[in-house]
Amino acid sequence: MTVPLVAAVDIGGTKTAAALVRGGAVLTRTQAPTPARDGAAAVLDTAAALVRSLGDAPVAVGVGAPGLVDPATGLVTAATSSIHGWSAVDVPGGLAGRLDLPGVVLNDVQAFTLGEAVHGAGRGLPTVLGVAVGTGVGGGVHAAGTLLVGRLGAAGHLGHVPVPQATGRPCPCGAVGHVEAVAAGPAIAAAYAERTGAAVDLPEVVRRARAGDPVAAEVIAHAGAALGTALAGLANTLDPDRVVVGGGAAVPELLAAARPAFAAACMPVLGVVPLVPAALGTDAQLVGAAEAALRALAAGAAR
Amino acid sequence: MTVPLVAAVDIGGTKTAAALVRGGAVLTRTQAPTPARDGAAAVLDTAAALVRSLGDAPVAVGVGAPGLVDPATGLVTAATSSIHGWSAVDVPGGLAGRLDLPGVVLNDVQAFTLGEAVHGAGRGLPTVLGVAVGTGVGGGVHAAGTLLVGRLGAAGHLGHVPVPQATGRPCPCGAVGHVEAVAAGPAIAAAYAERTGAAVDLPEVVRRARAGDPVAAEVIAHAGAALGTALAGLANTLDPDRVVVGGGAAVPELLAAARPAFAAACMPVLGVVPLVPAALGTDAQLVGAAEAALRALAAGAAR
Repeated sequence: MTVPLVAAVDIGGTKTAAALVRGGAVLTRTQAPTPARDGAAAVLDTAAALVRSLGDAPVAVGVGAPGLVDPATGLVTAATSSIHGWSAVDVPGGLAGRLDLPGVVLNDVQAFTLGEAVHGAGRGLPTVLGVAVGTGVGGGVHAAGTLLVGRLGAAGHLGHVPVPQATGRPCPCGAVGHVEAVAAGPAIAAAYAERTGAAVDLPEVVRRARAGDPVAAEVIAHAGAALGTALAGLANTLDPDRVVVGGGAAVPELLAAARPAFAAACMPVLGVVPLVPAALGTDAQLVGAAEAALRALAAGAAR
Repeated sequence: MTVPLVAAVDIGGTKTAAALVRGGAVLTRTQAPTPARDGAAAVLDTAAALVRSLGDAPVAVGVGAPGLVDPATGLVTAATSSIHGWSAVDVPGGLAGRLDLPGVVLNDVQAFTLGEAVHGAGRGLPTVLGVAVGTGVGGGVHAAGTLLVGRLGAAGHLGHVPVPQATGRPCPCGAVGHVEAVAAGPAIAAAYAERTGAAVDLPEVVRRARAGDPVAAEVIAHAGAALGTALAGLANTLDPDRVVVGGGAAVPELLAAARPAFAAACMPVLGVVPLVPAALGTDAQLVGAAEAALRALAAGAAR
């Protein structure tokens, strides 16, 4: 049986990438700026043009996008503010009208998890917890052959696990004490600024840590410990084969600090679940979106 | 189509219950002391005798038992110390030899979760988080039509989620800072003893709280807050339709204290997931074990 060719689109706040994917491998890839201020129709026009530019004849299109996707309706809900008019958008329907392809949309971090779980660092393993650390902390759970999406399509918001290291810290979600409040890239930069007065971004904090700045090293270590603690509670609850950590802020120093905290808080009787870096880089969302499209086709659920 | 009649067995450290179950309803039920000190063969003899005493002709037998059940082999691993020689026991095989019925075994708390999720307080809902608070804190996740069991059959150990309220408290598992270390029945009693010098059990602490003892009320409230915080992190990660809380220590005062902590730590954008009491009482494990047997039969996995 030939493995089908699938188109994948990764819509971000600043750029949109598209690819042709077969069997988890990205064959060709292109990208363009997301016309985020011009509204959903312009964003879908861009996505469709990128897919068309790849040529060939994919059987379906899978889209990873910001916001939540309602499992019941397939509509984007609780949309990101980074794309104008992105709420209640019918992404598969909009692309089907432009490309005459059945399609499916899923949350971008869930797409990352699905890509890594099935074709990346979690390949072949039944239960995989995916974590993406960037401007926020998100992730997902792939278990029983399925990406768990939950009631509102919100499963995977594991940046919002309370941890002792974040006690009293306000989280961007509006609550207090979540791991994202100390472990996301901007939170690390903010912690550094609090202690030094230097308003620099995460890459600069990392650079300073590597140059020997002890405060920079400490805020990264604190973030990693918080992340490891949160992931241990999830590992104890889900008994995964692996935890896969990716995203722009998942620097090696963060993972190095996460591992001992994770090991300390995992149940000893279970041993320590491997906590490994993601393997697919920026292709993970595309590979996951393509996988979701294939699964929807197989289930008769693509539109 | 006739709904099949299934035998269910709930093996505990002190007593073993058996029932005939049809469509999630317990039709007849019996129980006997578990001969825990006489070893696995005696325990299985008792279980088989109880099932035989129920008469009728069930099509399969499902067993909920302490310890972990390896998903790959069906053998009990990481066994409880409460039953002598309970490690590496082939429960379905042992019962098949005694009863000539195909069967399946699952962890008792997972059985509780499956029963409540499918036929109890989570009935009809796609994603249910089950929690049992007793001498420990355990639970499970039912999602995508499946009880998640994880790599080692250990999924559901949500008593081992780190929470700020348990910082520094040793957990029975060997780690430190887990919710079980403050929210399990013995932990609540221990906290009361620490503050008052009175070595009493949980029912007595609850009685004193109801009689107006402020310290008793405080230790229960602290336990509930810790539980609510742990469950919120899991709710943010799994986006369940409901969280179902049962078990002998899940007194109304504990749930009342858990709810505001849970609501405060849930992501505001998701609203608050209902946190509800379990509905099946001590039948939950039996109903869940019967459901597991039916599913195994349907999947051709019963032995």
